[in-house]
Amino acid sequence: MFDLLIDLDPSRGRQAGLEDALRRGVTSGQLTAGARLPSTRALAKELGYARATVVAAYEQLVAEGFLVAAHGAGTSIAAVPRAPADRPRVDRPPRRYLGDFRPGEPDRSSFPRSEWMSSLRRALSASGDDLLGYGDPRGLEELRHALAAYVGRARGVVANPERIVVFGGFANALAVLAEALRGLERHMIAVEDPALPFHPELCRRAGMDIERVPVDAEGVRVDVLAQTSAAAVLVTPAHQYPLGVALAARRRTALVAWARSTDGWIIEDDYDGEFRYDRQPIGAVQGLAPERVVYGGTASKSLAAGVHLAWLVLPQALVEPVVETARWRAAVSTIEQAAFADFITRGRLDRHLRQMRAVYRRRRDAVIALLRAQAPWLTMTGIAAGLHGTVELSGPVSREAEILRVAEAHSVGMHPLSVHRHAPGPPGLVIGYSRPAGHEFTSALERLGQLVSVLPPSSG
Amino acid sequence: MFDLLIDLDPSRGRQAGLEDALRRGVTSGQLTAGARLPSTRALAKELGYARATVVAAYEQLVAEGFLVAAHGAGTSIAAVPRAPADRPRVDRPPRRYLGDFRPGEPDRSSFPRSEWMSSLRRALSASGDDLLGYGDPRGLEELRHALAAYVGRARGVVANPERIVVFGGFANALAVLAEALRGLERHMIAVEDPALPFHPELCRRAGMDIERVPVDAEGVRVDVLAQTSAAAVLVTPAHQYPLGVALAARRRTALVAWARSTDGWIIEDDYDGEFRYDRQPIGAVQGLAPERVVYGGTASKSLAAGVHLAWLVLPQALVEPVVETARWRAAVSTIEQAAFADFITRGRLDRHLRQMRAVYRRRRDAVIALLRAQAPWLTMTGIAAGLHGTVELSGPVSREAEILRVAEAHSVGMHPLSVHRHAPGPPGLVIGYSRPAGHEFTSALERLGQLVSVLPPSSG
Repeated sequence: MFDLLIDLDPSRGRQAGLEDALRRGVTSGQLTAGARLPSTRALAKELGYARATVVAAYEQLVAEGFLVAAHGAGTSIAAVPRAPADRPRVDRPPRRYLGDFRPGEPDRSSFPRSEWMSSLRRALSASGDDLLGYGDPRGLEELRHALAAYVGRARGVVANPERIVVFGGFANALAVLAEALRGLERHMIAVEDPALPFHPELCRRAGMDIERVPVDAEGVRVDVLAQTSAAAVLVTPAHQYPLGVALAARRRTALVAWARSTDGWIIEDDYDGEFRYDRQPIGAVQGLAPERVVYGGTASKSLAAGVHLAWLVLPQALVEPVVETARWRAAVSTIEQAAFADFITRGRLDRHLRQMRAVYRRRRDAVIALLRAQAPWLTMTGIAAGLHGTVELSGPVSREAEILRVAEAHSVGMHPLSVHRHAPGPPGLVIGYSRPAGHEFTSALERLGQLVSVLPPSSG
Repeated sequence: MFDLLIDLDPSRGRQAGLEDALRRGVTSGQLTAGARLPSTRALAKELGYARATVVAAYEQLVAEGFLVAAHGAGTSIAAVPRAPADRPRVDRPPRRYLGDFRPGEPDRSSFPRSEWMSSLRRALSASGDDLLGYGDPRGLEELRHALAAYVGRARGVVANPERIVVFGGFANALAVLAEALRGLERHMIAVEDPALPFHPELCRRAGMDIERVPVDAEGVRVDVLAQTSAAAVLVTPAHQYPLGVALAARRRTALVAWARSTDGWIIEDDYDGEFRYDRQPIGAVQGLAPERVVYGGTASKSLAAGVHLAWLVLPQALVEPVVETARWRAAVSTIEQAAFADFITRGRLDRHLRQMRAVYRRRRDAVIALLRAQAPWLTMTGIAAGLHGTVELSGPVSREAEILRVAEAHSVGMHPLSVHRHAPGPPGLVIGYSRPAGHEFTSALERLGQLVSVLPPSSG
């Protein structure tokens, strides 16, 4: 056992160092269960320590359960398992693409670091100590005020700060909302088909039953929705994910009429509503029916996914159920919330969005021009908006996997359309153009060009 | 309707300003459903705008559903509900106490603002753009490394970074963990009695059944636990909340034996394990049985509740179920996570804890001395640790409410013990001494002295 003590760490002090060494010996298996330790007197002499130091260390480890002291039988090693040596990997390290057209995230290199830093600094230096407490379960009051003004101005949302709840991302918000709806005995939720796979998955985990409602060129099929018994519907009206269509005016009206006549809830996921390139963005559906729509916004696309900030604007009837659920589920650093409030009220978010709209618009146009010139059979569906476009493929579903295999070999990342579908439908590719850093976009585009140049044209 | 247009905001531009005014008119109810709008030609002339501007504004509002365009019948107002004018209050504004002895939070004024700020700055300036993505669902790798080293060093936890998951607070962590256990068909969880009321509540919301297990002077009654069919038990071994006792050495051993023999999980809520005043802290139970214990730590007591940072160290068998659940539930700013990693690895957390241990120890001693001198019938139970002490009262439960009423009148905040209890037991007071700011503690203590001086001694 004295081998162990060679490792005594002098910076930790004699008693703590001795304890560390013994703990390590027990958990590593070097000291086996039942083995007797030397007497405190003997060990103290051996180490040149005061005996009281060794006695204190033994007592500490007895209290922690690593050692067992028996009356008159000295001190021995308790039965303690070895330290886990395995290092399981849950996620593979992220794949790097030379042409990274995977949708879902804005350009990380465009994040306004110094402006965000000054908002953090101002937030922390200007706020009183109350900022550092748990805070209101809806989120920081000043952020809810800033968001109410922002979503009103930018998205036509009728909001007051009392009805806003801040979350660590839209997934977090949807999980809480679904749980709150389940608590209200509203068990059935309709989800667009196609949609992000994690949306129905999250609702299912919260105990909801799921109906899928198809999407066509005018957006979600409200006539099909009306045939379900859904109590709520999760939609992406400004820019359907993944098909990229906008909900047509008459569908908006029909959707609101559905909610009114059934006391149903519309959950409006406005994930990229700030990005419209061909015209002024169409306002949120929420503005038409603030008492029937839950509006969800996020900073994951407008700013960065890493800030993990999202918000719901709630109808009066859902404020209390959602806040009671969020109280134990959602938690966002109050310092970060105060920084975001500062960032919005100083107009930094609007300015950043103006810049990024111009950037993403150019990128979108470049991708479309490339496809048109080199692979006219790959045509993006949907409106000029957002951070992605979708290409539907003719032919069998296997064609999708085939193209993605070639893309991987060319180090081009894209998402398959089929994983978003519940009912069978054309395969396709979901192509994001926001992810590459600004200086990498041209070479990413070249990669995409090389890829499509080797793809055989659609068989039909 | 032209009254509305008096409010045209020139900074918004003509079309946007006109749209805003019309939206406001519709949602405020000034423009009633069905009413005809003037023709675009007439309105353009009235305002002195180009007719195309008015046409574009009308079209925008038709697309959004605020206006209805009928062929040959001009444009009219759609049926849109009024804006919600109510401002519901979910939470009352926090009560301010002159003597704030409510437990649950550290001294906010002691938060090391400038050190935290420099950690934020370093995190943001030293990290590549990968920091700004969604990140690993377990949390930032560098933070998990820093935490593994920290909990090993400070709390004797056997941790490797692959088994750590970062959350926005312990409540967030517990909700995810309970949901993961339910997903594994482990439905029954045992919770200490007394305990924080939200602990069983969170488990219940996650679909778990709850058993309560009494606590005595040696901590949780493992013999009673063994009679339940619980698959997991939630405990506070280092400093029972609220009674303040430590789990005795033989109970630690018995608890681990229970977990081994039943394949049960021990959930170790180590909320204030860093604060022990009379001796070196006793290491976490997790060190005895890393494959049977879920260790939970938090920065809410060691740093500030507002940072909303907590972590679980998981047994191998629970890593995947918890990560899969956390993937959609937990979300913490990656910038903040990087800052916390910096804060730990630079030794700032240890330094802060050394300072605060000395502060809280003095405060605890002062409260105990005051009670001993002025109200010897109010005796704190438990060990010299943590940020609170509990006083059990003799007499009926009504005595507790009586004292709290007088305390409110004296502007002294404390928590009732009875709300923590499931089975009947002595009433009492939970007294925190960490909440007042440093410069306010003396006057808070005076308030407490005034309160106890007017309380009639226990009737026994």
